[in-house]
Amino acid sequence: MSTRGELFDPLFGADRVGAELSDEAWVRAMLDVEVALGRAQATIGLLSAEQCAAIETSVAELGAPGGVDIAELGRAAVNGGNPVIPLVKILRERATPLGVEPELVHQGATSQDILDNALLLILRRGGSIVVDDLHSAADAAADLARIHRETPMVARTLGQQALPSTFGLLATTWFTSLDRAATRLGAALSAAPVQFGGAAGTLAASHPHGLRVSDALADDLGLSRAVAPWHTDRTPILEIATALGVAAAAVSKPATDIVAMSSTEVAEVAEQNPGGSSAMPHKRNPTAAVTARASARRAPGLVATVLANSDHEFNRAGGPWHAEWETLTGLLRCTGGAASRLATSLQGLEVDSDAMARNLQLTGGHILAERVTAALAHLTSEARGIVTRAARSGSRLSESPEITRHLDTARIVELTDPTNYLGHATDLVDRALAARRGEMS
Amino acid sequence: MSTRGELFDPLFGADRVGAELSDEAWVRAMLDVEVALGRAQATIGLLSAEQCAAIETSVAELGAPGGVDIAELGRAAVNGGNPVIPLVKILRERATPLGVEPELVHQGATSQDILDNALLLILRRGGSIVVDDLHSAADAAADLARIHRETPMVARTLGQQALPSTFGLLATTWFTSLDRAATRLGAALSAAPVQFGGAAGTLAASHPHGLRVSDALADDLGLSRAVAPWHTDRTPILEIATALGVAAAAVSKPATDIVAMSSTEVAEVAEQNPGGSSAMPHKRNPTAAVTARASARRAPGLVATVLANSDHEFNRAGGPWHAEWETLTGLLRCTGGAASRLATSLQGLEVDSDAMARNLQLTGGHILAERVTAALAHLTSEARGIVTRAARSGSRLSESPEITRHLDTARIVELTDPTNYLGHATDLVDRALAARRGEMS
Amino acid sequence: MSTRGELFDPLFGADRVGAELSDEAWVRAMLDVEVALGRAQATIGLLSAEQCAAIETSVAELGAPGGVDIAELGRAAVNGGNPVIPLVKILRERATPLGVEPELVHQGATSQDILDNALLLILRRGGSIVVDDLHSAADAAADLARIHRETPMVARTLGQQALPSTFGLLATTWFTSLDRAATRLGAALSAAPVQFGGAAGTLAASHPHGLRVSDALADDLGLSRAVAPWHTDRTPILEIATALGVAAAAVSKPATDIVAMSSTEVAEVAEQNPGGSSAMPHKRNPTAAVTARASARRAPGLVATVLANSDHEFNRAGGPWHAEWETLTGLLRCTGGAASRLATSLQGLEVDSDAMARNLQLTGGHILAERVTAALAHLTSEARGIVTRAARSGSRLSESPEITRHLDTARIVELTDPTNYLGHATDLVDRALAARRGEMS
Amino acid sequence: MSTRGELFDPLFGADRVGAELSDEAWVRAMLDVEVALGRAQATIGLLSAEQCAAIETSVAELGAPGGVDIAELGRAAVNGGNPVIPLVKILRERATPLGVEPELVHQGATSQDILDNALLLILRRGGSIVVDDLHSAADAAADLARIHRETPMVARTLGQQALPSTFGLLATTWFTSLDRAATRLGAALSAAPVQFGGAAGTLAASHPHGLRVSDALADDLGLSRAVAPWHTDRTPILEIATALGVAAAAVSKPATDIVAMSSTEVAEVAEQNPGGSSAMPHKRNPTAAVTARASARRAPGLVATVLANSDHEFNRAGGPWHAEWETLTGLLRCTGGAASRLATSLQGLEVDSDAMARNLQLTGGHILAERVTAALAHLTSEARGIVTRAARSGSRLSESPEITRHLDTARIVELTDPTNYLGHATDLVDRALAARRGEMS
Repeated sequence: MSTRGELFDPLFGADRVGAELSDEAWVRAMLDVEVALGRAQATIGLLSAEQCAAIETSVAELGAPGGVDIAELGRAAVNGGNPVIPLVKILRERATPLGVEPELVHQGATSQDILDNALLLILRRGGSIVVDDLHSAADAAADLARIHRETPMVARTLGQQALPSTFGLLATTWFTSLDRAATRLGAALSAAPVQFGGAAGTLAASHPHGLRVSDALADDLGLSRAVAPWHTDRTPILEIATALGVAAAAVSKPATDIVAMSSTEVAEVAEQNPGGSSAMPHKRNPTAAVTARASARRAPGLVATVLANSDHEFNRAGGPWHAEWETLTGLLRCTGGAASRLATSLQGLEVDSDAMARNLQLTGGHILAERVTAALAHLTSEARGIVTRAARSGSRLSESPEITRHLDTARIVELTDPTNYLGHATDLVDRALAARRGEMS
Repeated sequence: MSTRGELFDPLFGADRVGAELSDEAWVRAMLDVEVALGRAQATIGLLSAEQCAAIETSVAELGAPGGVDIAELGRAAVNGGNPVIPLVKILRERATPLGVEPELVHQGATSQDILDNALLLILRRGGSIVVDDLHSAADAAADLARIHRETPMVARTLGQQALPSTFGLLATTWFTSLDRAATRLGAALSAAPVQFGGAAGTLAASHPHGLRVSDALADDLGLSRAVAPWHTDRTPILEIATALGVAAAAVSKPATDIVAMSSTEVAEVAEQNPGGSSAMPHKRNPTAAVTARASARRAPGLVATVLANSDHEFNRAGGPWHAEWETLTGLLRCTGGAASRLATSLQGLEVDSDAMARNLQLTGGHILAERVTAALAHLTSEARGIVTRAARSGSRLSESPEITRHLDTARIVELTDPTNYLGHATDLVDRALAARRGEMS
Repeated sequence: MSTRGELFDPLFGADRVGAELSDEAWVRAMLDVEVALGRAQATIGLLSAEQCAAIETSVAELGAPGGVDIAELGRAAVNGGNPVIPLVKILRERATPLGVEPELVHQGATSQDILDNALLLILRRGGSIVVDDLHSAADAAADLARIHRETPMVARTLGQQALPSTFGLLATTWFTSLDRAATRLGAALSAAPVQFGGAAGTLAASHPHGLRVSDALADDLGLSRAVAPWHTDRTPILEIATALGVAAAAVSKPATDIVAMSSTEVAEVAEQNPGGSSAMPHKRNPTAAVTARASARRAPGLVATVLANSDHEFNRAGGPWHAEWETLTGLLRCTGGAASRLATSLQGLEVDSDAMARNLQLTGGHILAERVTAALAHLTSEARGIVTRAARSGSRLSESPEITRHLDTARIVELTDPTNYLGHATDLVDRALAARRGEMS
Repeated sequence: MSTRGELFDPLFGADRVGAELSDEAWVRAMLDVEVALGRAQATIGLLSAEQCAAIETSVAELGAPGGVDIAELGRAAVNGGNPVIPLVKILRERATPLGVEPELVHQGATSQDILDNALLLILRRGGSIVVDDLHSAADAAADLARIHRETPMVARTLGQQALPSTFGLLATTWFTSLDRAATRLGAALSAAPVQFGGAAGTLAASHPHGLRVSDALADDLGLSRAVAPWHTDRTPILEIATALGVAAAAVSKPATDIVAMSSTEVAEVAEQNPGGSSAMPHKRNPTAAVTARASARRAPGLVATVLANSDHEFNRAGGPWHAEWETLTGLLRCTGGAASRLATSLQGLEVDSDAMARNLQLTGGHILAERVTAALAHLTSEARGIVTRAARSGSRLSESPEITRHLDTARIVELTDPTNYLGHATDLVDRALAARRGEMS
């Protein structure tokens, strides 16, 4: 008996979402769809209340721990090409003694109907955890933005210190994209329509009740009603997959920033529980951000796989469909893991505003050279040349003789004081926080 | 002097969209942004009407054919890392003699402001062609669905004939996903917000007018207003990129079907202008569908590239940002090309309903074995066994002695008549066409 | 207690390779590296024989079933960022009472040394199964090629029947690429060098014995010796990952062919144990090929992920490295699964040479129109026009009055006999089989 | 008349390789294959010397600037699905007046034969430039390694300063992986076999001379001889594509390092011609490394596209094949561009060994805490606790009263002198340089 996921899931934040992606979760989801189908059919009189209850009882027994031998089910799935076939057989065997004839179980459905709906349930159950973790991360980032709305921090472009900004504005970038990603993922999950078409997608085996069964099934499962079966039109799956991809991307940026800001040379933030090393006691590895980043980086390839498997030929596909199942759970796992680890990183992030202030002084005022140039320009036509030479020499602008000849030191210090050149940083933070409250309320 | 794209663009349908993606289109888009910035600043009094007009004149001159030496601009872009820097230099040189001081051109903007907005313009201009071609393809598919709403065709699952359906229902799958993809792409293009943040994203150089300039610029460009700059939050770009990926996927499925349906053995459709061969005069290559498929298959990897380049560190990124430009034009090119080629394929698609009827007879009624089994079940407890044996033997059900012993031939023929088992196929086509009219109206 | 993989691994052929990829396999591999390090150090006198034996004893105990609580190890891995840190702690606790001071365990190593070597062991152990399954598939394809070296079959291009060929030649394409992929994967696995560099990659903690320890460790593990540590040069990993990607591609082509050849309309092959349907007894789903194809289609995205995670910054990376572990096991799983399912499909493939012969007649000789044209050309200057008209009309060439006016029917039949126009098909099969024997011997 | 590539190619280093990838280069390559085929056939007597010369003359005329109207050729390619069909028509028209009957041009070949060989020529011609640029980059990195084999530099792991190392050892990582990537790419390019199979891959139209023509064609084109045609076995293409992907990965790591090392806070290197900003004169953007990184990051998605398009059905594929052409030129373009830009970055890299030394002092000796612990351990059982407390407090170890109580300052300074703990750094550099010389010689 061997395990999978226990070794790495906690490290990559995938343990919580992973619980919704296990073999057992799949079996439960497939059984949930079968019983919902029974209820839908009972609603419109295709099953009696007793038959429906008997199916519910059977499913409850099979859904209980140990109710289905999953390893055996897995082996039995090989020949037919999916686990629904043997599962229906088991369910029928269970329901028959309770008075439900075999053909009344899974009535009018094809394996793909069950599996696609089960996949949607898995995506919703796992996805709601991902949305939750995205919100947690966004909340933590919004807190940082609020607390540090005026905390000066240098803006860096292409790795170079550029101009003053605030940490609040950087954190605003984090929460706005996390919020957007969460909203979109939630919308994609909500929009997904029920799958019900029968073997050929014509609902022939349910005729003339097919459309009503489909709608009743949607209502029971809490899915949207479908205009038509989408056995080979994978747009609903693609919408969810791409929303997961965008969510992973939204995690990637703050995680990358935190790793960079935690570096020894920058040292502007530290995780609450950094990874240490007994041999190197000074190390404060931003482990949560590192593993968030690692998880997020696994998403794009999986999104590409889902997109590339959209060429479902004819009425049900031989391969592209089967490729979806584990790719999508993998995508939930790494996106959810990324969001979870980022939330952990952000929730305990220690912000060193002194270090931010110190780093702002690192160039000796050169990041505000432009302001000095502008002031000098009123006094000499050589302004740009003078400042450029000072910049190239590396000396502090307030100590450059060429400059102090024209401007007194206090004036230069004032001009190069980063807090005097923050532009709309605080306005932008406030606008974004207000927009967030608006959307949340 | 060498060319690029002329050899392959027509073949892959990329010539129309490609016209919006040329070097000239990029230069025009960047100039459009610069002039829109001037107008936005004039609106709120940061430029005089004369200065604004002078910028417009300069831009008009540079935007005219030959106005900018693109090869030289490309070389001049190397040192600074993007073409905006030398373009602004050229624009300033042009505007200065007209009375606009250099610092009034590109005022308060950073290169990324210009390039991101130009990218959005490119995406919109190219994207609207893609949306248009998606609509053309969907229209053609909807026509086929309407015309063939009752044309029987066998449903195939995992490559095997399964049950009767209609060609109309298959074509319905085509247009519904094309419509959805077009709608979503249009929405993503419309939602994209303006980019304006200045060098650090704080709008410091535009303070205290930054927010107003940003909004005025959005209005002038027809973009959404932005809550905050998104220099390193690439969600708007990702939304468009993933919508393009979903659109390519929506093309992929019908293109794959058409190639399969055109095969010599199936022969249910043929393109109007199939590719031929002088050596093999019988060949009718579905060239448009083949190249649609080829183009669509290039999209997923490009979407993955855009998603993987979302880790824009700090305030403006050193690499991930630069990786977007040509990846996104490449994605427009292959998605647009795919949509265009599919439209061509569908618009002239010759449907051979006789061949469809013939193929429905190919299994000798076995695709409706289940109905025969059900009828037999009233007469013998051996029903399933009898039919399964007949199926395995390959003989027509109506000619199987074991079956004709119980059911007369006419009854078997009736039971295995595909038109008697089309379920809700027509209802589903009608529902989808009605939904389409609703959305369109 | 939930499971993962039991439900889907058998279906996708991943059960055999999966056994080498479990949590337990990872723990075993890490322990194997630790004990190998001990032996390497003992070889050059850095540990006594007794200490080495004590480490071996400790590792044997921990490596036994239940020796390590994996769920706990997984949780303990979170803080430090990898499972080696807590595993070394456990190993030290175990070894100390046996007389090995803590610092003698894991001496001079960093976590990445252990994990990279463990990854290589995992890749080798799983990879050897993949190579094995590739060989099995290639063997089966080579058998088909030999048996059917002269079996006529139509060649299809762009879905259209083109000219006669043989099934043996198609099967030759299958085995040659499987063989090549197996060879390359084996070579990449063999070439991988040992990882040993210590915390900074300088081997400082092993100085002055570092190079000797590294070489001895390589020898003990059966890995190549390293010129230098490759903590951030991931070429060895990329070589294996891309070889796996090529192997999946080599599976993809025959799997796609088998699915197409099994279609009802083509029906030239059938799997020995096709998936059936009680409701549709005529269905013979090529389940093994379908799931081989599905597995193979998951590989490219994973290869892209490995390639995209090659930007390991500085001396050990914060994220890209961590993204490798599960991506590579996923890649082994789907490539191995694909190879295994293809082998199953090929080993029992039923070839219907009658169907192949029948399909060759489907165009009524038009696939050999060119030969008729050539013969006619000696008799009339209208040859090409005549044949083209006949082709367009769809009638058999031997029944076209325009043609029979010039050539007698027997001559036309001879000219359109596919067995008279097989070119070098048999030569090519023989050459490839001979080359295979040469490489194998 | 619009252009493509002139605006961005220089910036992304793709101008040199791009010259081999133009429309003209494709036409030239296709013509080169046609004429080589003629020569091959002349060698074995299937064409007369005069006919061969006439074909050579025709090709020379068409290959001259303006010889073929490429825009028209592109349009003419649409119907048949590839540009070979109209190009052969043009060539035949040109050769006929010179006494070569139409059927003697392109004799026995199919379009894919010409296009696949032309693709190989393109890959070789472009690829040799990529190999060249990889070598240039590796040479520059090797020079840095040699010059700085003893230059101390801190090793950073997960963004944290870890232990001392040398810049030479970091640069060694750079050149070793660049060298390996260049070697492998060269090997993949050399190994590619000729494509020659005729319409069905049976060489029927060349029978009984097919094998000899194939070999002669290989020899003429400088390609390897083929065991069999590989129309649908894309392994040769995959080998080249994955080698390009690995090469891009090998560029990615040093480019990422250079961007990080150029950051204001680290400032250990600077590019010779950094990108500047008139507004921010202190900025020294490592533009070459930034654009190298951007280019390299575009490769993985393209490799995935090539791998995903390996499912070439039957004897010539409808879609997957067509998807290769522009994907492969795109891959050459971005890999070549990445290598070229990295070479530029490395060739002029200014290394600030003072900054490296300064950064090594940043932690106040804590990066060598382990050595102090070891020394203290001989004097007190509290050693680890004392040093850990000092590390957490942030004070210099040589100024920690708890430590100086046991060890005198001079001893602490010696222990924390990075140059005393470089391990085998120099040995490793020397080994790698020696191995390089060995391979090069």
